[in-house]
Amino acid sequence: KVIWTVLVTILGYASSLPVGDGTLCTAEELAKYKIIFTGKWSQIAFPKQYPLYRPPAQWSSLLGVTHSSDYSMWKKNEYASNGVRDFAEKGEAWLLMKEIEEAGEKIQSVHGIFSAPAISSGTGQTSTELEVHPRHPLVSFVVRIVPSPDWFVGIDSLNLCEGDRWMDEISVDLFPYDAGTDSGFTFSSPNFATIPQDTVTEITCSSPSHPANSFYYPKLKILPPIAQVTMVKIKKSQLGLSAPFINLPAKSNEIIDSVS
Amino acid sequence: KVIWTVLVTILGYASSLPVGDGTLCTAEELAKYKIIFTGKWSQIAFPKQYPLYRPPAQWSSLLGVTHSSDYSMWKKNEYASNGVRDFAEKGEAWLLMKEIEEAGEKIQSVHGIFSAPAISSGTGQTSTELEVHPRHPLVSFVVRIVPSPDWFVGIDSLNLCEGDRWMDEISVDLFPYDAGTDSGFTFSSPNFATIPQDTVTEITCSSPSHPANSFYYPKLKILPPIAQVTMVKIKKSQLGLSAPFINLPAKSNEIIDSVS
Repeated sequence: KVIWTVLVTILGYASSLPVGDGTLCTAEELAKYKIIFTGKWSQIAFPKQYPLYRPPAQWSSLLGVTHSSDYSMWKKNEYASNGVRDFAEKGEAWLLMKEIEEAGEKIQSVHGIFSAPAISSGTGQTSTELEVHPRHPLVSFVVRIVPSPDWFVGIDSLNLCEGDRWMDEISVDLFPYDAGTDSGFTFSSPNFATIPQDTVTEITCSSPSHPANSFYYPKLKILPPIAQVTMVKIKKSQLGLSAPFINLPAKSNEIIDSVS
Repeated sequence: KVIWTVLVTILGYASSLPVGDGTLCTAEELAKYKIIFTGKWSQIAFPKQYPLYRPPAQWSSLLGVTHSSDYSMWKKNEYASNGVRDFAEKGEAWLLMKEIEEAGEKIQSVHGIFSAPAISSGTGQTSTELEVHPRHPLVSFVVRIVPSPDWFVGIDSLNLCEGDRWMDEISVDLFPYDAGTDSGFTFSSPNFATIPQDTVTEITCSSPSHPANSFYYPKLKILPPIAQVTMVKIKKSQLGLSAPFINLPAKSNEIIDSVS
C-alpha cells in the first residue's frame, strides 16, 4: 500500500498536468485533429502601442508537438529551453525542432511535430492537422507574437484523451506569455537579454506592473484573449485517401472583440 | 491505332509535366518523406541590395501540397491564383489553403497539405514531413522571399514516383520567381499592383533586364541557387508509432556559396 501510494505520487508529480495523465489514456486508436489558430490581436481590442509598421502586428508560424507526459515543450513558471527562446525571440524554429526530435528518439516521448503557416496580420487564421496516440495524447504548441521581445501564446500539454475516447472538439482562449529571455518591455523594444534568464510568466493587464508595458491596462480586470485555438476531431469517414480534409471555417470578420 | 495516339496525346497535354504523369504511378503504397528546405540567400552570394534591416533577409513559412496532375499550385508562364498572390505578396496562407482544400473536395486532386515553419534569416533550414499516394504522387510548394514585392521560390508538380516505386531521395536547387502581381523592382519596393496581372516568371541575373533589379548581376551567367530542397523517403522501420522521425541534418555553416 505504501509503495503504491508513493508510485502514484511520483507519477502525479512527474506529469504535473492539469487535465489527467497521458499514461492513463485507454483509447484504442490514433486520432486525427484539425487545429485552427485564430489571431484576435486587433487594434480595437489592444489599442496600446499596437504595431502598425515595420513590422505590423502579426503571428509567426505555429510549431507544435504531440507527446506523452515525459516531454514538456514549455511550462509556466519554469525556464524556457534554448529552442523555445530562439522561437519566442526570433521565430527561429530549428533548434526547437531538434529538441523535440531528440526527445522523440531518446525517451520516445514524442509522437509527431506539426506546424501551420504564419499569419501576416493580427487577426487572421491558420490551420493544420495533427495526430495523437494513446501513449502520446498531449498537445503543446507555441506561436510567437510579432513584433515582441520574447512573447508568445501557446498550449502546454493539453490532453485530448478522456479515458477510453478522444475529445470531439475543444476550444481554448489564449493569453500572452513572456519567455523570460529578453527584458524588452514593449512590442518594439530593442533586444536586451535577461541575465540571468527568468522563468516563463503570463503577461496580464497588471503584470508586469509598469505603465510602459504594452499589455498594461489598469482599468481592465483581465485582458481579452489575444488568440484562440480550436481542435476538431476529423471523422474517420473523412479520412479517405483522396480527401483528407474537413472544411476550414469561413474567415470571420467578427473576430474583433472590443474592450475599450 | 489512331484513337490510341490521340488518347496519349491528350493525356500528355493534360498533364504537361516534365517528369511523367501522376496517373502512371503503379507503386503500391503510401510513402512518407522528410522535406528539408535550406535557404542559401546570403549577403556573400547575393550582395546587391541585401536586406539587413526591417526586415532582414528571411523566408516565410513553407506551404505545400501533394496532388495529382489535375491540380496545379502554380506554374511558370501561367497566371498565379489569388491564393498564390496573397502568399507571394504577404505570406498570407489562408486563401491558398482554401484553394487547395477546394481542389481536394471538388476534383479529389489533392492528397494533403503540409507546411514548415518560417526561417528568420536568409541562410537557415526548416523541415517537415509529407505523404504521397500513387494517385497523388506530385509535390508542389511555395516559400515567399522576405522582403520582396511578390517573389518566391518553389517546386511545381515534382513527381516522386518512378513507375512502380518511390524515389529514395531527391534534391533540387531553387531560383527566384516573380508572381506577376506586384511591379516592385527591388526587395524593399513599396506595393505597386501589376495591372493587368502578369504571368509567373523566373527572375534571372539578366531578366528583368534593368540595372535597378535586385537580382541583376550582368557579370554572371546564372544566379547561384538561392535555396535548395531535399526530400528523403522515410524508411518504414522508422515509421514506428512512437518514433516518426528521421534525423534532421546538422545545421550547416557551409551553405554560403560565394559568387562574387
